[in-house]
Amino acid sequence: MAETNLSKKSSSFWEHVHGISDKVKRFSGLAWRAAWEVGKEDPRRVVHSLKVGLALTLVSLLYLVKPLFKGIGQNAMSAVLTVVVVMEFTVGATLGKGLNRGLGTVLAGSLAVFIEYIAEVPGQIFQAIFIGAAIFILGATITYVRFIPCIKKNYDYGVMMFLLTFNLITVSSYRVDNVWGIAKDRITTIAIGGGTCLIMSVLVFPIWSGEELHNSTIFKLECLANSIEACVMKYFDDSENQVTQGDSSEDLIYKNYKVVLDSKAKDETLALQASWELRSSRYWHSIPWQQYARVGATLRHFSYTVVALHGCLLSDIQPTRSTRALYKDSCIRLAEEVSKVLRELANSIRNKHQFSPEALSHNLNEALQSLNNNLKSQPQIFLGSMNEQKQEEDSRISVSSTKSDSSSAFECKSKEQSGELTREGHKKVLRPLLIKIAVTTSLEFSEALPFAAFTCMLVEMVAKLDHVLDAVEDLGKLACFREFREDDDEIVDF
Amino acid sequence: MAETNLSKKSSSFWEHVHGISDKVKRFSGLAWRAAWEVGKEDPRRVVHSLKVGLALTLVSLLYLVKPLFKGIGQNAMSAVLTVVVVMEFTVGATLGKGLNRGLGTVLAGSLAVFIEYIAEVPGQIFQAIFIGAAIFILGATITYVRFIPCIKKNYDYGVMMFLLTFNLITVSSYRVDNVWGIAKDRITTIAIGGGTCLIMSVLVFPIWSGEELHNSTIFKLECLANSIEACVMKYFDDSENQVTQGDSSEDLIYKNYKVVLDSKAKDETLALQASWELRSSRYWHSIPWQQYARVGATLRHFSYTVVALHGCLLSDIQPTRSTRALYKDSCIRLAEEVSKVLRELANSIRNKHQFSPEALSHNLNEALQSLNNNLKSQPQIFLGSMNEQKQEEDSRISVSSTKSDSSSAFECKSKEQSGELTREGHKKVLRPLLIKIAVTTSLEFSEALPFAAFTCMLVEMVAKLDHVLDAVEDLGKLACFREFREDDDEIVDF
Repeated sequence: MAETNLSKKSSSFWEHVHGISDKVKRFSGLAWRAAWEVGKEDPRRVVHSLKVGLALTLVSLLYLVKPLFKGIGQNAMSAVLTVVVVMEFTVGATLGKGLNRGLGTVLAGSLAVFIEYIAEVPGQIFQAIFIGAAIFILGATITYVRFIPCIKKNYDYGVMMFLLTFNLITVSSYRVDNVWGIAKDRITTIAIGGGTCLIMSVLVFPIWSGEELHNSTIFKLECLANSIEACVMKYFDDSENQVTQGDSSEDLIYKNYKVVLDSKAKDETLALQASWELRSSRYWHSIPWQQYARVGATLRHFSYTVVALHGCLLSDIQPTRSTRALYKDSCIRLAEEVSKVLRELANSIRNKHQFSPEALSHNLNEALQSLNNNLKSQPQIFLGSMNEQKQEEDSRISVSSTKSDSSSAFECKSKEQSGELTREGHKKVLRPLLIKIAVTTSLEFSEALPFAAFTCMLVEMVAKLDHVLDAVEDLGKLACFREFREDDDEIVDF
Repeated sequence: MAETNLSKKSSSFWEHVHGISDKVKRFSGLAWRAAWEVGKEDPRRVVHSLKVGLALTLVSLLYLVKPLFKGIGQNAMSAVLTVVVVMEFTVGATLGKGLNRGLGTVLAGSLAVFIEYIAEVPGQIFQAIFIGAAIFILGATITYVRFIPCIKKNYDYGVMMFLLTFNLITVSSYRVDNVWGIAKDRITTIAIGGGTCLIMSVLVFPIWSGEELHNSTIFKLECLANSIEACVMKYFDDSENQVTQGDSSEDLIYKNYKVVLDSKAKDETLALQASWELRSSRYWHSIPWQQYARVGATLRHFSYTVVALHGCLLSDIQPTRSTRALYKDSCIRLAEEVSKVLRELANSIRNKHQFSPEALSHNLNEALQSLNNNLKSQPQIFLGSMNEQKQEEDSRISVSSTKSDSSSAFECKSKEQSGELTREGHKKVLRPLLIKIAVTTSLEFSEALPFAAFTCMLVEMVAKLDHVLDAVEDLGKLACFREFREDDDEIVDF
């Protein structure tokens, strides 16, 4: 009896161990995959990690090698600390942090030595009160200053280092006589640490924020072009396998404009970091990184229209096939021209040549005019469709319902991707009414309105494109891109 | 002669001094105003600054007061450093950083002591090589681990502290025998510093990230409501003083939806910080902060439609006054209902009670139906306006041109506010064509399309509102808000 119990216990113990080992295996598998993904996504991350390891080892030598240790001593720790904190992925970020740290330390050191010099108060207690008061006042002031937007944006880390160093030196001065010695040591070691970081990040496989920003701007232009093309193609796609194709094309549309929508923080950080890089182009003109951020802002503004266009695609109220077929060619042509202009802008930035706005907008204008003519010559949608309503009612209902089913499926998908999906099987309060209106009652709601909105968003897109053209043109001028030549067209045509 | 020269020099010297003093005065005036604005915007910033000053002074006492100094000694510096780095504006941020710093230090200390224990290598040189290798491997690995998204998001600071402490202790162990002592001292002082920060931020005028997130969600809902109302009112505003009024109402529309568009980073940070706060509601249910972030995401998605609606307002192609007058009432009613629903959602979150989706959507459905009936009963815009074209051509041209002038002025303003404006007096490449099309040629482009798009965007807005309703409903359930009662309507009606 007791033996059976024991064997039961022992078997349950082994099951438990197996369960744990399974969990560990699964977790380590997941961790390994996550680590692998990170490296596959951007192999420069591996290089950066090795760079940090090397920089840390180099700085540690200050402490490990005897002759070096004699010069620096205990303070070598501060250099190690500096490397850990300052070394960032791009040159610009490292420079920004390093200069902030250096400047903050130097200023704080000077101020602390100065205060120590004028505050030769007699008596330990008075000195303690004086130091306490100085720390309180400076601590509160500096913390407040960090809230000022322009300081928060550019010098937050420097101001923090100022406060840190000031406190360190002022407090130390109470029990150490040689304040100047402390300040000097701290500044020297931070300079050594910062110098190591700079040398490592500038000389060994440098990663420039400016280049990142340049490439991400090109990437965003191309993403938008893809998104618009996919969106319009899907809108006019009448084939039966729409639902099965849907997932991938929906992914394409959504992911591509999402890149642009979410780019604000990254753009601004990169532009700021790039401005620390103080780099010059081949022609020794400084590159206007803030203008890249401005191009990003106009692109975001442009992408809101793409979202609205995508909204027309997802809407429960859809025009009939015959209506769509009427305007298909001219709409697709306009969308293709818009995409082409975006791609040409991307090429102009990539190849660093200016573009000719006239040449670029020529085809676009033609496409716009052709859509306009098409709408004028076949105004059935607005004038004649009332008569056709009866005939088409049946087909419309079926189209509408397929559309609405598949589109809500896609919408759920999009929501899921953006982390917006809450729970499955949710009742929609307003949707039933919208569908009811669409299917049974109004011609305007079900036909003219949505299609007109789609067309109008296309035209609106052209208007927004104007701002993008402006911003990229300015970028070309400010960055002194090569002037436009006729043969640039060859590169552009594809 | 020499005297004249001298007096000239001296006068130019004084001018120079005056110039500098003027500049200093102007700069200090600007700095003072910036500092004043920061405090006026959020007076809690002043309180926070005083809190940091106090915490720093308290921690400095460790060094200044003799009995305390005997216990802790030189390491008191590490506590000062902890306070400067860890103390953040909100409780959640302070907790997150403090726990990260504490955990990172404890783990790194343990690992360093463990490695020191197993690596009793004979010979100083071997030991140095061993330490160097350990630093390189751990430095590279930890830096790489920091790239993994979920670690970067939640534990970046902790992982950095781990690396820092590990290096500090491992390097020190080369010349100091008592590694355990170093680790213990570091952990103690960081605990003291972190504890001071926590006590100060939790007990003295605490600022909770969760509350910030809660309030900002309410604020965003109200901003969108204001923006939609202002946008639709302006669209149907026929008064002569439109241009003079324009600036302020344009500001209202733009600033209000801009708050929502730019909220992504802030929302996510606040939700993350709030999750560190481990706070419970009155009813002891944990509040689902991530659901607040999800509500924010649906609101951003909703706001893209508001941007598109605003785009219709700014568009160069505008419907005539008579067309607008026909549908004015039903459009304004629908917009008001949408705004009302948004405000009621804001109230429901503010008062922490759930809402009844049916009651909320009742008026909205009626407004939608009335717009639909209006469009059905007066289809002039789509059917009859071709005949009216001739008569109205003159008036339209004038309306269109005023519109386009004032709207481009506003657009410039909006662009300026969002930092998109590049330079004044820019030639628009595509605009002339758009205006030409609008004024001279097509009925569809100039009349039916833009108005249909405007209406369609309003309807689309109702569809998007459904997602917002869903998200807020989920929030109410997850956060266990009070159930909906009939008398809640009283609070809601305003």
